[in-house]
Amino acid sequence: MSAGYDVLGLGNAIVDIIAQADDAMLVREKLQKGSMALIDEARAESLYRVMGSLTTISGGSAANTIAGIAAFGCKTAFIGKVRDDELGKSFAHDIRSLGVEYRTSSASNGPATARCFVLVTPDGERTMSTFLGACQNLSAADLDDELIRASKITYLEGYLWDPPHAKDAFRKAAGIAHSAQRQVAFTLSDAFCVDRYRAEFLGLIADGAIDILFANEHEIKSLYETSDLQTAVSSLQRTGVLGVVTRSEKGSMIIQKSAISAYPAFPIDTLVDTTGAGDLFAAGFLAGLTKELQLANCARLGALAASEVIQHIGARPQHNLLDMARENGILK
Amino acid sequence: MSAGYDVLGLGNAIVDIIAQADDAMLVREKLQKGSMALIDEARAESLYRVMGSLTTISGGSAANTIAGIAAFGCKTAFIGKVRDDELGKSFAHDIRSLGVEYRTSSASNGPATARCFVLVTPDGERTMSTFLGACQNLSAADLDDELIRASKITYLEGYLWDPPHAKDAFRKAAGIAHSAQRQVAFTLSDAFCVDRYRAEFLGLIADGAIDILFANEHEIKSLYETSDLQTAVSSLQRTGVLGVVTRSEKGSMIIQKSAISAYPAFPIDTLVDTTGAGDLFAAGFLAGLTKELQLANCARLGALAASEVIQHIGARPQHNLLDMARENGILK
Repeated sequence: MSAGYDVLGLGNAIVDIIAQADDAMLVREKLQKGSMALIDEARAESLYRVMGSLTTISGGSAANTIAGIAAFGCKTAFIGKVRDDELGKSFAHDIRSLGVEYRTSSASNGPATARCFVLVTPDGERTMSTFLGACQNLSAADLDDELIRASKITYLEGYLWDPPHAKDAFRKAAGIAHSAQRQVAFTLSDAFCVDRYRAEFLGLIADGAIDILFANEHEIKSLYETSDLQTAVSSLQRTGVLGVVTRSEKGSMIIQKSAISAYPAFPIDTLVDTTGAGDLFAAGFLAGLTKELQLANCARLGALAASEVIQHIGARPQHNLLDMARENGILK
Repeated sequence: MSAGYDVLGLGNAIVDIIAQADDAMLVREKLQKGSMALIDEARAESLYRVMGSLTTISGGSAANTIAGIAAFGCKTAFIGKVRDDELGKSFAHDIRSLGVEYRTSSASNGPATARCFVLVTPDGERTMSTFLGACQNLSAADLDDELIRASKITYLEGYLWDPPHAKDAFRKAAGIAHSAQRQVAFTLSDAFCVDRYRAEFLGLIADGAIDILFANEHEIKSLYETSDLQTAVSSLQRTGVLGVVTRSEKGSMIIQKSAISAYPAFPIDTLVDTTGAGDLFAAGFLAGLTKELQLANCARLGALAASEVIQHIGARPQHNLLDMARENGILK
């Protein structure tokens, strides 16, 4: 069948609540810089109280990627769970305003819409504390089989292992996509997330549930429990999965069974907030794949999208990425 | 008595809901570019539906100014009315997180916390539509006489003429400040606001209710109903009020009875969003006054603060303005 959508994302539907912070605050609050930690409602309250001035912008890892792919002019859809509260309405408004197909029913009871407290330090690094809220009720019942079958690529985030039933949705979605001869892409999300679910993630790769794997340097090292990047990359190469490893200002690597290639980062003026860098790299790369670009140009689109999002606060693009790609001669 | 506070602000307590827009959208929605229009709840709903991805950040003209003064390390306070809803809590959290004394009771019933829909076009210009909500219930009863007497300068916004009872609070606050030998500063807010309340604003100046007047070029021309800046400035000069007229990239003018001086704008890299430019100029200028700087340096501090806020989304400073002023040799 013909593909009605380029990419469908399945992930935690989260609103980011962002504040600037200094390193001393991270120490005081016992937060691991650069990581994502899960917090409960009480901790969310106490953290909120000590945070500075807030900027509220829709987030969520896979949702950010889908927003980025939409900003490249691709046809996209998203599945993720919010509550029918103010933040939930805002999340739905934002993703739909980008032209993303989003019809997951919002919960009318239970925990509030998920929020992620993002602390941005002067070096641009972000440290995240996530209250999963309504995401905890995402289950296989929220999948739209037709939508998965109609999407060239189904993109799944590792963070889906945190809520209790979302991994069932993950596995089922991957199965439906493959039975329709579609591709499945997966992001490892976070080195600590990999630490929590290493065996399962390695199992997904071994079982052939994944065609394309996104990871940053820390995540791929964590997956293969090595401090040596080359060792990790070689391990990934042996699996036959198409690997995309991002390395911040050092650029990216594309790992194929036959070859490993390195690509530079896109130059920037000022690093403001790294939130969404990995999500947007994946967005550019996947947009390139669905436009049937060569892998080198997929990597260039990824680097371009990442460079946009790290030059402002928030993990959603503020510019038309399609126009940017044209201005830079990557797309016509 | 000694002044416990440098500046007290009295204004509408508003949360900004910001989206990017193109000029065609402004035309479609019949919005006057660069202006602030008042809207009712139904219009707020319809405008929200057609807006793009949202960024939510505390705003309000005088509140932005107070936030800026606090970012210069001054002691500040704010009086303004929110509802006890999510946006209201967020407004209170944000202003208190800056160290601003804010103890106005929030309304437990009646309209929701005020929101301003800010549409930012690619040229960086902002067009605002404000639902005043809970601000409509600000009255003289919300004044804290002690706080006013303890503040070197009481700063009032012209927008206070829009809600029904806030002007009474304005007049009473100015009276208390003067009876305590304190200064009263006033911003004309918006050319259309001047158009709505010209006679009252001229009356305030004639009555000596104001010591320092902030206006941009359009506002001061509107006040004196002239298309000629020089004519408007001369009219203002005759009143004896200390006038501060901002002219975007053309810099600012300080109008004293004895002299008119012009000062350059501060250079910027990229104009992103002009929201808050006037508010932050006032912040720098007033911070300078309370630090007993010469007027020329007050204008430099104003230009510096304005340059910071127009280089990112949102009308609240994202940098420590005191550090910036030191780096630029304006403050020690």
